[in-house]
Amino acid sequence: AGNKSIVVSGSSKSTMKVSGRVHVDAWGFDHDENINDIAANDTDENNRLGFRRLRFGVKGKIKDNMIYKIEMELAGGNASEFRDAFIGWTDLPFLQEVLLGNQKRPYGLDHLNSSRYNVFIERPFVIEAFNEDARRLGLQAYGISNDQAWNWRYGVFNGRNVQDEGNYVGDHLQLEIAGRMANTLWYDQTSGGRGYAHWAVSGSHSDVSSNQDEDEGAVAESRFRTRPEARTAGTRWLDTGRIAGLDYYNLLGLETVVNLGSLQFVGEYQSNWGERDGAEDIHLHGAYAYVSYFLTGEHMPWDRESGTLGRVTPFENFWLIDRAGGGKAAGWGAWQVAARLSYADFSDEDVQGGEAESLTLGLNWHWNTNARMQFNYITGEIKNRTDLVGTGNYDVYGARFMVDF
Amino acid sequence: AGNKSIVVSGSSKSTMKVSGRVHVDAWGFDHDENINDIAANDTDENNRLGFRRLRFGVKGKIKDNMIYKIEMELAGGNASEFRDAFIGWTDLPFLQEVLLGNQKRPYGLDHLNSSRYNVFIERPFVIEAFNEDARRLGLQAYGISNDQAWNWRYGVFNGRNVQDEGNYVGDHLQLEIAGRMANTLWYDQTSGGRGYAHWAVSGSHSDVSSNQDEDEGAVAESRFRTRPEARTAGTRWLDTGRIAGLDYYNLLGLETVVNLGSLQFVGEYQSNWGERDGAEDIHLHGAYAYVSYFLTGEHMPWDRESGTLGRVTPFENFWLIDRAGGGKAAGWGAWQVAARLSYADFSDEDVQGGEAESLTLGLNWHWNTNARMQFNYITGEIKNRTDLVGTGNYDVYGARFMVDF
Amino acid sequence: AGNKSIVVSGSSKSTMKVSGRVHVDAWGFDHDENINDIAANDTDENNRLGFRRLRFGVKGKIKDNMIYKIEMELAGGNASEFRDAFIGWTDLPFLQEVLLGNQKRPYGLDHLNSSRYNVFIERPFVIEAFNEDARRLGLQAYGISNDQAWNWRYGVFNGRNVQDEGNYVGDHLQLEIAGRMANTLWYDQTSGGRGYAHWAVSGSHSDVSSNQDEDEGAVAESRFRTRPEARTAGTRWLDTGRIAGLDYYNLLGLETVVNLGSLQFVGEYQSNWGERDGAEDIHLHGAYAYVSYFLTGEHMPWDRESGTLGRVTPFENFWLIDRAGGGKAAGWGAWQVAARLSYADFSDEDVQGGEAESLTLGLNWHWNTNARMQFNYITGEIKNRTDLVGTGNYDVYGARFMVDF
Repeated sequence: AGNKSIVVSGSSKSTMKVSGRVHVDAWGFDHDENINDIAANDTDENNRLGFRRLRFGVKGKIKDNMIYKIEMELAGGNASEFRDAFIGWTDLPFLQEVLLGNQKRPYGLDHLNSSRYNVFIERPFVIEAFNEDARRLGLQAYGISNDQAWNWRYGVFNGRNVQDEGNYVGDHLQLEIAGRMANTLWYDQTSGGRGYAHWAVSGSHSDVSSNQDEDEGAVAESRFRTRPEARTAGTRWLDTGRIAGLDYYNLLGLETVVNLGSLQFVGEYQSNWGERDGAEDIHLHGAYAYVSYFLTGEHMPWDRESGTLGRVTPFENFWLIDRAGGGKAAGWGAWQVAARLSYADFSDEDVQGGEAESLTLGLNWHWNTNARMQFNYITGEIKNRTDLVGTGNYDVYGARFMVDF
Repeated sequence: AGNKSIVVSGSSKSTMKVSGRVHVDAWGFDHDENINDIAANDTDENNRLGFRRLRFGVKGKIKDNMIYKIEMELAGGNASEFRDAFIGWTDLPFLQEVLLGNQKRPYGLDHLNSSRYNVFIERPFVIEAFNEDARRLGLQAYGISNDQAWNWRYGVFNGRNVQDEGNYVGDHLQLEIAGRMANTLWYDQTSGGRGYAHWAVSGSHSDVSSNQDEDEGAVAESRFRTRPEARTAGTRWLDTGRIAGLDYYNLLGLETVVNLGSLQFVGEYQSNWGERDGAEDIHLHGAYAYVSYFLTGEHMPWDRESGTLGRVTPFENFWLIDRAGGGKAAGWGAWQVAARLSYADFSDEDVQGGEAESLTLGLNWHWNTNARMQFNYITGEIKNRTDLVGTGNYDVYGARFMVDF
Repeated sequence: AGNKSIVVSGSSKSTMKVSGRVHVDAWGFDHDENINDIAANDTDENNRLGFRRLRFGVKGKIKDNMIYKIEMELAGGNASEFRDAFIGWTDLPFLQEVLLGNQKRPYGLDHLNSSRYNVFIERPFVIEAFNEDARRLGLQAYGISNDQAWNWRYGVFNGRNVQDEGNYVGDHLQLEIAGRMANTLWYDQTSGGRGYAHWAVSGSHSDVSSNQDEDEGAVAESRFRTRPEARTAGTRWLDTGRIAGLDYYNLLGLETVVNLGSLQFVGEYQSNWGERDGAEDIHLHGAYAYVSYFLTGEHMPWDRESGTLGRVTPFENFWLIDRAGGGKAAGWGAWQVAARLSYADFSDEDVQGGEAESLTLGLNWHWNTNARMQFNYITGEIKNRTDLVGTGNYDVYGARFMVDF
């Protein structure tokens, strides 16, 4: 392409970077009959094949110190949505960086990690249930200490996920204040970050509408639900429903990461106390822990600015290719194995969202910095769930192909 | 990013510019009980928070003398739409520029102005009601005189808004011919355009289907409706409904702008005569006028090629930032105040779309050429409206954050 | 635009090309009363005006040997869809290129041709009916012989069109294996490809779910349907419905192209044998042939790598333009005429999808390499169709404006 076909941004005062990702997933479900009662259509969960993420977006800077981002999610076909969609200010005194718009709420390391870098295909019960789809309309500040040891984010959010609607309509603002303070307490500079340790504490206070009727104005954002750490259709296997009388809830999250070369330990715990009018208060909670290891010697990088996982760089890229100049070249990519234990209890008093535990075994095959395959085997059980008789056991098999650009 | 990551257009014969905008709005409504009857769900209008515009698009040239544009509106979440979507020819003898596709109809200065430059958050009653969502499928020529004193646009359009459907289906074409002749009768070159005067006349003749049934083929484009110059949900507070028996309507628009440095006067009047079969003809009309003033000395630029408002450049950009090289820099941006009076009468004979008047006070804080905040306070009343008993009074508070790139 | 406004891709390891197309169509229908029974709403087919394609997409390379593509179709307004959406590997030993994701199934030259290059506005009965919307989730290899005489593609696909849903959900995988072997048996290098001959054979074996109920899991992909080679609303004039008891079907396609300078002959035949449980097996088939000729002497280029039509380059571009330096320049573009005969028989045993034949006369006015107008006149008849009494005759008039970039 010649000089004239170079793409330029709409304004001479703004820059633009265009990026995207493609995630193609396959899921197979095998469960006992009890699960039928909580799966879609009151029948067995169907297998699934298709796009998990098909994203495309632009971001850039606006002179002097502003930024913007619009990201689209096209994997829903007719039901396209937006993801990150914000304007922001950088280099601010005291506040450092502030974003206004649709952005991730600041709790749950596994949600703050990009889906491009996460070790397992889907997120743990508790992380997804207490922060469904993560992003909300809000105003959030992002900061970091000069020595990069501490980073934090805090802000106010509206409780509704508006990625499919674009706007929140309602007289009850359903405001939430939330924040996260993270500390990289050890980071081995000499090895280029192959050793590090991190901990963080996060929390939120969410004011919830008492309106339980979806037809009138504000819908109460008082529901916690999630899939079985795999992509089921329609219904969520764990679901509290809208909790009657919920006035507000407080969330506390604790997280830690320890990385020793190719080996990584990660754990999180989240606890959710709900205050109800005319009913007993409730306490829901959950946790997960995993260990991952690179058979080929690489490590999981750490981003000290955001306190999240970074992009893996294989020692050698994967594939046997025919070189243009003749001859062949081979490389095996990076191989990573992982095991995760996850637990959640969303049942308390009359709220019976379900109690679940599961084990996930994972294999990640990183082809290059921008592409990888993931394989997950999940075995779990659910009990104490409305509509579920006794205990439901299940096995799930998943695979993902992924690139980002 | 290195050389290889430069984005190029799909064809060596075409150029591409990528642009977009993010508008984040908050609205609060306060009205008397009478308004309940015309607001959504027969209850009080809910407050609103979210994206008003989330746009992204590409445009460019195709060798030798063609142009193209596709612009998406993502603020609706699942309900994405397109906006400008056309192909065109430039440098034509006599016709100058011709566009085919979805583009703005040529009447109403306040609609022809980009939402990036308009002084108030939302458009006046009459401008939006007689040209709902502005864009239609059409073929329109755009011209300008050599001395830039005169510019014009005229063309034929289909009457239906197809931004949500993509196509018009119907045997009655519902064609409209429309045009606008504009004159910049004074433009002070020496001050760089700080002084100018403009007037324009526009008109249309719209042939309307008599089919009043949405289920069969062509739906009659014989409805005029609008919100209270603020973003309400669902229903329009002013709405004639589909006017029984309407055969065609003729529209006449007059507009003027006088700019004296930081001070600007703008006024428009539009009149709409409807010819009906088997019923009395009707006459609907409305007007608005506003004055705006920059406290910080800037002026509203004028685009003589299109006869519309241009992009404001603050004398100094806003924000206190930490400079990379140490030290701080501060600037206050540009501050603009404005007041608008708006009136519309959409009630005549048996058509009772409503009669409304409102006052809007506005404050615009321009941070830089690509970003600003807007604040509006609106107070108004509606009467002579079907379903409305007596007079409805309301106050509305609005704020917008806006960037474009 | 300055240096800073150059758009870059999201990763330094990936390249990006942005492209799109705009197709604006107008259709007029004139048919006898019998057709009312198979047209939308049991009434006469309405005329149509709007966007047929409004596409925008990105594609590029990922170091070392991967590629990606995401393409959006916005012509549906609220109902946006994706088209090509895949990741892939190039320079592979033996397999050469492999794509995973949404891509065209490998049968029907007229479907493999890009809509940017096809000679007629819409595709023939049999090509569209046996490969509705062409693209499916699949894994397909693409190869070519060293002398460019042979090229092939083969792979496995899921039978469902997921462009509107993003995922296939169902326990019956409805797998299809399909392939195409193509041979450019003559290619006149000395004239730059003004003479060539091509033939290809393609086939598929499609395993179909027996589930006929759309409400439960996998929907049986056992329906063949198409419009009358023109863009009707809603219903398809030819439609087998879901074929009761269909277990699998086998498809065989034959195609040939002979090009002699400005003159081109194209023909295809496809035959579809369906194996049913508890009912007679069925045989559906169809064919078309066309001749096209450039009045202005150009030729239809041939892409030997894919075995499909290429982009036409007019000897001189169209339009009378005012040159910036004074004077005028004129050119008449390229003019092409064409005639197509098409036949299809989708009725056998109790399956009465219809038997149709039609003649299409076409005129293509190529303005430049990226823009053209197309005019089609179609006359045809349909019989042996469920809900249709006797024979239905119709005439259709179509026009298209098209650019790509």
